[in-house]
Amino acid sequence: MSHPASSNPSDNTKVVTRNGDTSAVGEEMLQLIHDLFPICRSITGSGVRESLEIIKRHLALEVREVPSGTRIFDWIVPKEWNIREAYVKDLTGRKIIDFQKSNLHVLNYSIPVCAKVSLKDLKEHLYTVPEQPDLIPYRTSYYKDNWGFCLSHNQFLTLQESEYDVFIDSSLQDGHLTYGEYFLKGETDSEVLISTHICHPSLANDNLSGIALAVFLARHLNQHSPRYSYRFLFTPGTIGSITWLSLNEAQTARIKHGLVLACVGDSGKITYKKSRRGDAEIDRAVIQVLKDTGAPYEVFDFSPYGYDERQFCSPGFNLPVGCFMRTPHGKFPEYHTSADDLELVRPESLTDSFAKCWAILDVLERNKTYFNLSPKCEPQLGRRGLYSQIGGQKDGKLQEFAMLWVLNLSDGKHSLLDIAERSNLVFALIHNAAQRLIEHGLLNEAAEPTRTEDFGA
Amino acid sequence: MSHPASSNPSDNTKVVTRNGDTSAVGEEMLQLIHDLFPICRSITGSGVRESLEIIKRHLALEVREVPSGTRIFDWIVPKEWNIREAYVKDLTGRKIIDFQKSNLHVLNYSIPVCAKVSLKDLKEHLYTVPEQPDLIPYRTSYYKDNWGFCLSHNQFLTLQESEYDVFIDSSLQDGHLTYGEYFLKGETDSEVLISTHICHPSLANDNLSGIALAVFLARHLNQHSPRYSYRFLFTPGTIGSITWLSLNEAQTARIKHGLVLACVGDSGKITYKKSRRGDAEIDRAVIQVLKDTGAPYEVFDFSPYGYDERQFCSPGFNLPVGCFMRTPHGKFPEYHTSADDLELVRPESLTDSFAKCWAILDVLERNKTYFNLSPKCEPQLGRRGLYSQIGGQKDGKLQEFAMLWVLNLSDGKHSLLDIAERSNLVFALIHNAAQRLIEHGLLNEAAEPTRTEDFGA
Amino acid sequence: MSHPASSNPSDNTKVVTRNGDTSAVGEEMLQLIHDLFPICRSITGSGVRESLEIIKRHLALEVREVPSGTRIFDWIVPKEWNIREAYVKDLTGRKIIDFQKSNLHVLNYSIPVCAKVSLKDLKEHLYTVPEQPDLIPYRTSYYKDNWGFCLSHNQFLTLQESEYDVFIDSSLQDGHLTYGEYFLKGETDSEVLISTHICHPSLANDNLSGIALAVFLARHLNQHSPRYSYRFLFTPGTIGSITWLSLNEAQTARIKHGLVLACVGDSGKITYKKSRRGDAEIDRAVIQVLKDTGAPYEVFDFSPYGYDERQFCSPGFNLPVGCFMRTPHGKFPEYHTSADDLELVRPESLTDSFAKCWAILDVLERNKTYFNLSPKCEPQLGRRGLYSQIGGQKDGKLQEFAMLWVLNLSDGKHSLLDIAERSNLVFALIHNAAQRLIEHGLLNEAAEPTRTEDFGA
Repeated sequence: MSHPASSNPSDNTKVVTRNGDTSAVGEEMLQLIHDLFPICRSITGSGVRESLEIIKRHLALEVREVPSGTRIFDWIVPKEWNIREAYVKDLTGRKIIDFQKSNLHVLNYSIPVCAKVSLKDLKEHLYTVPEQPDLIPYRTSYYKDNWGFCLSHNQFLTLQESEYDVFIDSSLQDGHLTYGEYFLKGETDSEVLISTHICHPSLANDNLSGIALAVFLARHLNQHSPRYSYRFLFTPGTIGSITWLSLNEAQTARIKHGLVLACVGDSGKITYKKSRRGDAEIDRAVIQVLKDTGAPYEVFDFSPYGYDERQFCSPGFNLPVGCFMRTPHGKFPEYHTSADDLELVRPESLTDSFAKCWAILDVLERNKTYFNLSPKCEPQLGRRGLYSQIGGQKDGKLQEFAMLWVLNLSDGKHSLLDIAERSNLVFALIHNAAQRLIEHGLLNEAAEPTRTEDFGA
Repeated sequence: MSHPASSNPSDNTKVVTRNGDTSAVGEEMLQLIHDLFPICRSITGSGVRESLEIIKRHLALEVREVPSGTRIFDWIVPKEWNIREAYVKDLTGRKIIDFQKSNLHVLNYSIPVCAKVSLKDLKEHLYTVPEQPDLIPYRTSYYKDNWGFCLSHNQFLTLQESEYDVFIDSSLQDGHLTYGEYFLKGETDSEVLISTHICHPSLANDNLSGIALAVFLARHLNQHSPRYSYRFLFTPGTIGSITWLSLNEAQTARIKHGLVLACVGDSGKITYKKSRRGDAEIDRAVIQVLKDTGAPYEVFDFSPYGYDERQFCSPGFNLPVGCFMRTPHGKFPEYHTSADDLELVRPESLTDSFAKCWAILDVLERNKTYFNLSPKCEPQLGRRGLYSQIGGQKDGKLQEFAMLWVLNLSDGKHSLLDIAERSNLVFALIHNAAQRLIEHGLLNEAAEPTRTEDFGA
Repeated sequence: MSHPASSNPSDNTKVVTRNGDTSAVGEEMLQLIHDLFPICRSITGSGVRESLEIIKRHLALEVREVPSGTRIFDWIVPKEWNIREAYVKDLTGRKIIDFQKSNLHVLNYSIPVCAKVSLKDLKEHLYTVPEQPDLIPYRTSYYKDNWGFCLSHNQFLTLQESEYDVFIDSSLQDGHLTYGEYFLKGETDSEVLISTHICHPSLANDNLSGIALAVFLARHLNQHSPRYSYRFLFTPGTIGSITWLSLNEAQTARIKHGLVLACVGDSGKITYKKSRRGDAEIDRAVIQVLKDTGAPYEVFDFSPYGYDERQFCSPGFNLPVGCFMRTPHGKFPEYHTSADDLELVRPESLTDSFAKCWAILDVLERNKTYFNLSPKCEPQLGRRGLYSQIGGQKDGKLQEFAMLWVLNLSDGKHSLLDIAERSNLVFALIHNAAQRLIEHGLLNEAAEPTRTEDFGA
């Protein structure tokens, strides 16, 4: 069988894109982010469709449409929202707030409006962030009919007592919820789920970066023949994952591991939020990779707020899905403002996020449980050229240590990930040792792989 | 059903007495301590009866009498001790040690004596604390016939070579062991046990404070209709709890939680000693309350010395009973000396001990296990007015977080206390969230409540 | 029954040798080390036989001979190696490297050679430690035909471009692998295994110290009637323990506890490496003893490199065998060099190693599980003279605490070692308390002793 990683398994955090240039993947991801940035996305509507069309240039995903009014668990697929134009004009006819300048200016899902209003009435529909007076906030009102504009607090303070023309040329009517799905069949039916939200308008880190990462992981997997099947979801946040889970409930039993991707382009360190189970294989694989790379990182326990892991980890599903981020939502000052722009997203951060995600998938792919075929005492490694022929030296070799660890713990009850954790050696070294032992007939894959699983508390 | 706590559950560490004055409860407790202080109590005799009569003015407890000679497990109810007068006179006829001045002066359970003795012989019956030369120690000899006097070491050093008249007008004869019991029937037969020792003579913190706390908790519970039944024991230390356990062995299966109360009036921080099980619900409820209040506190593991938890936690019972104290026995310098007087006990400390105990009972009362009735994905809280209608804001609200936690963990396997622990939110917030979810039909009490129980190791 | 420890169990780290002199045991051990030091040992050959003969003067062990070519699991017993003479001569005929001066000079298991070689060719057969330029390293080539000399790096640097006569008068031919075994039958068939390697030439700490410790432990046990049977193995490293395990596979089920002894004579603190199980009774007994003594110590988790615990803890056996050392292999600068000489080994360290090992065996011997025969409430200890008759004192006595702990936890599920761990009292105190309680009919040995066992993960 073939692995999704490079042929040198000790090198599994280095990623080589098709053209062989490691750093290029970040630049390619950034280009996709640039292409998607101008579009006014929401949880439904043409912005989502347009975005999925752009993604399709890179990845042959399937676009699904679910009609408004469809019951999905406790929710109903909402009406479809589309918008063409929106502004506030002062008495001179000057557009002082204009959707054309930034799609953040409109309260997302605003109902249509065309009225002349006093400043006082207008203010009830204006949203600002006083603590960040230069920035336009991003605000939504998906599930309550409302209209509004978002603007910088500094501009807000300049508004004069006067009358204003407000105009929002939007529509909210029966239509569809649209999402993208890409499935790559692997050797087995067991699935790895990669999910990312696609509902945010012109915000780069949250979450065009996540979209780009998912696209390029899928593209890269396409060049391999992975053991697992992989399912990529590009859905509007919350309502999209609820829709998918509702339509694919039976399917979820196949999901063995999963990651939600979000905010992966900023310059912060990697942050991982564990699945509700807390020690699912995905949680341990992520931590192993982050530890192995040596770079700073942070790991949080699960909590039921954040991104779509909220749905995947709801008690009725409790799927082993964690959330892979750089700086988490709400923790970078640009979060949900006009400052989350193309400047915030760095190609080297995108490359690093890609490399680490790839290394995580690599651990999942390679993590198997073996039987030591010579379990009584050590086998004679020296005879097989696997062990130093000169005895008595002070320092053994890491490769020898790794082989001894694999032999010692391969009793059918410890996966390679277990062994890496217990030995405190990097996963690639452990995996490499296992490969050499397999080649020499000393190790056999456990017939019934007893992958470490914990169904949480 | 009605709860013992105030109607505002987020306010469960504030206690309101009948007259509505929070601080008054400490003053009322202190008044009871004043009334009880002068009496010479012991493990049997009229001092205990007199004390229980005073308590009866506040609480309609039942007084039980168990005859001397009754076999109670490995013990036998001892003879009843009573004392009227005791002194040591010098040759001039002056009473140099006088029971009338302090009932600590007599070795508790002294046999009667009337003799003229040399200083040398007298000294074999004198007890002092050289390290605290001004204080009269409290000493007992319940189970070995002996007589003696306790006095300050400074006075001891002034005793001249001479002859002394010693006189103890006590009696030690068949009679009864006396204890008080108060039972409040709740909705269920499951019981909470509150036990306190009543055998110490004029010592205020140890343990008139514990008696006062038990009395006022019982009075306060009387004004509510609690879920649990509550049993309050006012027994002589060791022999009293052994007697009760011996006479009520079958009964003990109903005890789901328990607290021994002692030394709750000094100005030290709260100290909790866990039950033998170590993570019984009572242990976790106490720690949750102490954590929620934000004030300093200390928690110790169980050890088989201390107060009556020694008996409740003996291996043949292993009841989930911890010990709630301020400064523990032996750790405050006034312990078991004449300095453990009415000055040591502070009304604000008594109030605080009451408030925290009440909050603990409140957690026990409210701690239930629920099922999320919409366990697949989150239910749509916004539709029900339970969630902010404007999306995209950086900071969620604690109430929303609490509801999401309750929904996420209410799988029939996590109690509200489990959820408070895991979410790191205060119990009252979690409970309040559960109430709101119940009101909106999103949560149901688990039919067979699976309260977290650990039967220890 | 009789215990291997001295009659005063609270004194179980003090050891008295036959002549009653505690310190003498270290001197006696050192004398044995002196006697063994000059011999050129290897994994086979006359050096091992000669060494076992010297040990036999102290301990009536049995010498076993296993023929070359015998299949032992994945290995084959190698040819027997013997050596008489070896040197390198320069052109002047001077022996510049001479086996007679140090048996470390010859690469252990060198094949015979008699040749004139250039400096360049010679250098391919020379072994030095550049970082320790004064020392001769110890090197071996057991499983690959090779010849070589070890010398100080300083001498190596002085070698001139020239021709050299090399001569090794060794033989490598069918013969035997030789090892020693000493078995002491105890009350039960359950065994404690003590294993030590005997294959190193003139190296004192590694591992003549381990040999001496094993010999004197065995001698000392001979003076007692232990509960366990004891098996002492004196085997060549790796191949010897593999041979023994192969020949005695069925036997291994009897091994309940085991220690590998190595490097126990240097002046470093005690280091213990846990068994693969990690919390076997031997692991906990060692840690308890080290904690009780109050001296600094270090405990490491198991890893599959080190001494013969590698074989005993291979997954097919997974025996509860840890490794008892002072400074571990590779961690003292003299390790595997000519500086590991008789100066490195200190009699007081040997005495201390002996005392602590003895205390460990003592804990194993005494660690039983009991039932409190009066489990409901405390029994009345005072009546039996086991408890202070004067009550009210601030400080209890350690003996009383120990009895209360033993009573509280003796529910048939906690061994004395469990109780010592949980109470934080020294094992001897707990054991002594148990003895007193047995004497007073308050404790009974659990019929089916449920010794805490963990079969690891």
